[in-house]
Amino acid sequence: MTIPELSAFLDEVFPQVKGEFTLLDLTATTLCVRLNVQEHHLRPGGTVSGPSIFSLADVGAYLMMLARIGREALTVTTNCTIDFMRKPEAGRDLICEMRLLKLGRALGVLDGLIYSEGRDQPVARASLTYSIPPGKDMT
Amino acid sequence: MTIPELSAFLDEVFPQVKGEFTLLDLTATTLCVRLNVQEHHLRPGGTVSGPSIFSLADVGAYLMMLARIGREALTVTTNCTIDFMRKPEAGRDLICEMRLLKLGRALGVLDGLIYSEGRDQPVARASLTYSIPPGKDMT
Amino acid sequence: MTIPELSAFLDEVFPQVKGEFTLLDLTATTLCVRLNVQEHHLRPGGTVSGPSIFSLADVGAYLMMLARIGREALTVTTNCTIDFMRKPEAGRDLICEMRLLKLGRALGVLDGLIYSEGRDQPVARASLTYSIPPGKDMT
Amino acid sequence: MTIPELSAFLDEVFPQVKGEFTLLDLTATTLCVRLNVQEHHLRPGGTVSGPSIFSLADVGAYLMMLARIGREALTVTTNCTIDFMRKPEAGRDLICEMRLLKLGRALGVLDGLIYSEGRDQPVARASLTYSIPPGKDMT
Repeated sequence: MTIPELSAFLDEVFPQVKGEFTLLDLTATTLCVRLNVQEHHLRPGGTVSGPSIFSLADVGAYLMMLARIGREALTVTTNCTIDFMRKPEAGRDLICEMRLLKLGRALGVLDGLIYSEGRDQPVARASLTYSIPPGKDMT
Repeated sequence: MTIPELSAFLDEVFPQVKGEFTLLDLTATTLCVRLNVQEHHLRPGGTVSGPSIFSLADVGAYLMMLARIGREALTVTTNCTIDFMRKPEAGRDLICEMRLLKLGRALGVLDGLIYSEGRDQPVARASLTYSIPPGKDMT
Repeated sequence: MTIPELSAFLDEVFPQVKGEFTLLDLTATTLCVRLNVQEHHLRPGGTVSGPSIFSLADVGAYLMMLARIGREALTVTTNCTIDFMRKPEAGRDLICEMRLLKLGRALGVLDGLIYSEGRDQPVARASLTYSIPPGKDMT
Repeated sequence: MTIPELSAFLDEVFPQVKGEFTLLDLTATTLCVRLNVQEHHLRPGGTVSGPSIFSLADVGAYLMMLARIGREALTVTTNCTIDFMRKPEAGRDLICEMRLLKLGRALGVLDGLIYSEGRDQPVARASLTYSIPPGKDMT
């Protein structure tokens, strides 16, 4: 799948996050996604909340998986591990650089770094595992 | 801190999640919290979203830490690891049973199980590490 | 599989760890294993090494899986997460209390606590995921 | 600390692993280490054992920390998360490419990939957190 296809798919199946994520770059094994930080992502002091960082990592990994296995396939997060290293800066979007480390028949393994846009030091590190259940309707 | 004190503190510092969490039981090393599932926690099909499960684990662990170190102290999540094991059932709140495994001077380690209310099999398992920065104004 | 069957299987397939582990108790979802601490498990100061703690968690989880899926089945560790919380005491064996949280067709999820024998406070917490590849020769 | 200093330090404090690890490259934020695979690292079929992979990740991260904080400082592993992705190839050493993502006053966060030497696809991914206790004798 391409960036426009992935974006359209995201809007279709998760309308509740419409406009929150922008896909910036996609290769065979990497995906760069921006979280367009909105009021409801924030915590007091202007920092981005933990659940918002989790969402960004999970959306990035999910779309990377879909880019490879196709939209008809099912895939679900089975593990997500996040190290929170620095406080996100107020007034900046977050950028997630996700990479696919393994794509097997039953499992995908990904990891990524998350940055406050324009900064060098990552605010968080995430690794995720996705399970690919045998599809019923894949022909 | 007691359950009413923790609840009041949560409402005060995180007004954006007001009404989402109910504290059910607190001991020296355990805390049971309910996520009162609302429309915005859901994904298509009525299941609770991953970020909502993350929030529940993080709020549960954070309040367990505060119960022990007090509201003046600072503490921040440094790691969160979640295994997603089963799909939460539609139409049921989530219950998180968090326990404190270690409370050191600089770090707290916790883990917990998350259930669809009234069910025996956990939907997720979480472990979290909190850092306790040396407080400037604790006297 | 029973404790004697699991012990015999371990000796057969991993002769290099013969005598290191003793299976103490097994139920449908829990397994208690002792690491009989030997010279080569130690670090200066008499504490048990990290790799030895890893081994204990991995052997405990592997045997718990085998107890349920049988010795003909294949299963491999796909993720292991360990929180090291306290230094193991010199001169004491380690006890691992492992529990099976989920056993699906393709994945098993387990977690456990590890103690210096006779002590109340865990030295480590581990969670592990096992993949169960579709068996070729299971009939 | 430099590579020769780190190697000498490792031999001095962990004589039991003497000769197992070779430090290949060190920068301000990365360290490349080889596990010189020996008989006792192997499992049936010639693959390298999980505990040996754990050791390699832990030694790599520990030496990367020491390179920055100095040999007088204390630092202990508080978390290690490993995704096992592919079976290591028989007859090949393992290479760990570790990087330091954060070095704070109290915590260091690192992650790395582990390869069978000469191969492109990683066999494992590891992330580790080190705690730096306030030193007693650092002046």
